[in-house]
Amino acid sequence: MRVIRTAAAQLGPIQKAEDRDSVVARMIALMDEAKRQDADFVVYPELALTTFFPRWYHADRAEADPWFEAAMPNAATAPLFARAREHRMAMSFGYAELTPEGRHFNTSILVDRDGRIVGKYRKVHLPGHEEYDDARSHQHLEKRYFEPGDLGFPVWRMLGGILGMCICNDRRWPETYRVMGLQGVEMVVLGFNTPSVNAQRGAEGLGQRLFHHRLSVQAGAYQNATWVVAVAKAGDEDGHHLTGGTLIVDPNGSVAAELEGEADGVIVHPCDLDETRFGKETIFDFARHRRVEHYGRITGQTGVVLPE
Amino acid sequence: MRVIRTAAAQLGPIQKAEDRDSVVARMIALMDEAKRQDADFVVYPELALTTFFPRWYHADRAEADPWFEAAMPNAATAPLFARAREHRMAMSFGYAELTPEGRHFNTSILVDRDGRIVGKYRKVHLPGHEEYDDARSHQHLEKRYFEPGDLGFPVWRMLGGILGMCICNDRRWPETYRVMGLQGVEMVVLGFNTPSVNAQRGAEGLGQRLFHHRLSVQAGAYQNATWVVAVAKAGDEDGHHLTGGTLIVDPNGSVAAELEGEADGVIVHPCDLDETRFGKETIFDFARHRRVEHYGRITGQTGVVLPE
Repeated sequence: MRVIRTAAAQLGPIQKAEDRDSVVARMIALMDEAKRQDADFVVYPELALTTFFPRWYHADRAEADPWFEAAMPNAATAPLFARAREHRMAMSFGYAELTPEGRHFNTSILVDRDGRIVGKYRKVHLPGHEEYDDARSHQHLEKRYFEPGDLGFPVWRMLGGILGMCICNDRRWPETYRVMGLQGVEMVVLGFNTPSVNAQRGAEGLGQRLFHHRLSVQAGAYQNATWVVAVAKAGDEDGHHLTGGTLIVDPNGSVAAELEGEADGVIVHPCDLDETRFGKETIFDFARHRRVEHYGRITGQTGVVLPE
Repeated sequence: MRVIRTAAAQLGPIQKAEDRDSVVARMIALMDEAKRQDADFVVYPELALTTFFPRWYHADRAEADPWFEAAMPNAATAPLFARAREHRMAMSFGYAELTPEGRHFNTSILVDRDGRIVGKYRKVHLPGHEEYDDARSHQHLEKRYFEPGDLGFPVWRMLGGILGMCICNDRRWPETYRVMGLQGVEMVVLGFNTPSVNAQRGAEGLGQRLFHHRLSVQAGAYQNATWVVAVAKAGDEDGHHLTGGTLIVDPNGSVAAELEGEADGVIVHPCDLDETRFGKETIFDFARHRRVEHYGRITGQTGVVLPE
């Protein structure tokens, strides 16, 4: 048994007007609750410190810079890091990263039990679009405000296991999990902000959105024999509704724990990393079963090439 | 609307003692039923002509050759091809292929409405093992009796759409669907023979086996915006039970039709290939969203490379 007592710490909505100090206070309250439940590791959502700002269009992109963090930790998040060290609680959360060179990424970090940032991931699969789109019921401007991540999908040895990260839309792409699976990942943590309405197909509905979320996460877990911890920012942000669906999926692809509702809340599950072994050693023993000689298109071409 | 009225034609068990003529008569009966339901295309299981023989160990591999077909069509299957031409019914089925050079493959074919074989696929992801394994509750000797397929995952223009094939265990591997998705596949057909018992984890249970089946097929459909038609050989073959789970999954990943039970049976669904367009043009518009520069491990390494 190699158990990480893992807390999925869902955040309810963050309105545009809410400042980071207030959000960090909410995150600390969730961490305290995770600690009461004896967690070792707390996982927060994507862009945890602010509202999901890519829904707001700015003609001048620089006007979005106040949503970004120029350093991490910084004044606003220092109390969160301090409380984590006090609790000896590892953590992961997402934020908008502005680099010293002026580059913008949708980023998440892994922080060890000593409060040190040991891993950084930058979202690879940015959904949405770059220019204002009248045809959509709402805007989703991640391709406007962020560059695609430039760090790939690394994994890190931490908490006695091999951990990786991805963010939101990454979870729909099997490549995400596979690249980490090929590094032996035992737990993938991911935060998400998923609009309840498909901006291009309003009829889709919340149920279908949650189905696609669960399907993607469960398949990624099963097909790579890894735990997946998926944490939502949920609820109504300034009239824009985000799905819930915070859940912890085991290496068989089954939902081990799930949070109801769309408010701030925590679920804690004892994730035994040794449960990944059976899948990795049998049906998904990649070395025995994968046939890379037939996968060339996956890396050899980006888009579709139709047959003649 | 580009509708293929597709029949998933499940076969119940085929005992060792049952000969091909008898099986072909059952397949023809299913085809006639599909025709009564106005189908254009009938899909049968993997290794449709015989029992699932890889469960039987032969020290001399050549003793398994009687389970193989040295030509297709052949005397046993000629009546099936004749009936298909008569009905103007396209079809796909699986069989064990012995080539003139003495090579062995787990193969499936696409046959057009004129009874011509227009596509051949050879199973890439062979499960199981090569030598007798005392530690298993039953043998699964696909790696003993077959070579891995050497044809990749091609697609074909047929019935007004783009069709591809895979077989059984291939469906658990996201690479399978993605390689076809990158060729614009609109319908993947697959047959399977899946033991109800995990030979290495008896406690897993039928429910979990069916869950993994559905999860893999539904995720492959959703993540590539394609129809998937998955057809079982089901039931008790000489004391060895195979799962059912014959289903047709739509390009949203939802089960559009499902066959109950483990006997011979047909479900017909009008699969509109234009339903694949929304997914292919939005969230899974590969050209806009995929980032192949970060997928290198998927083709660059077969097995796991652990981090330092």
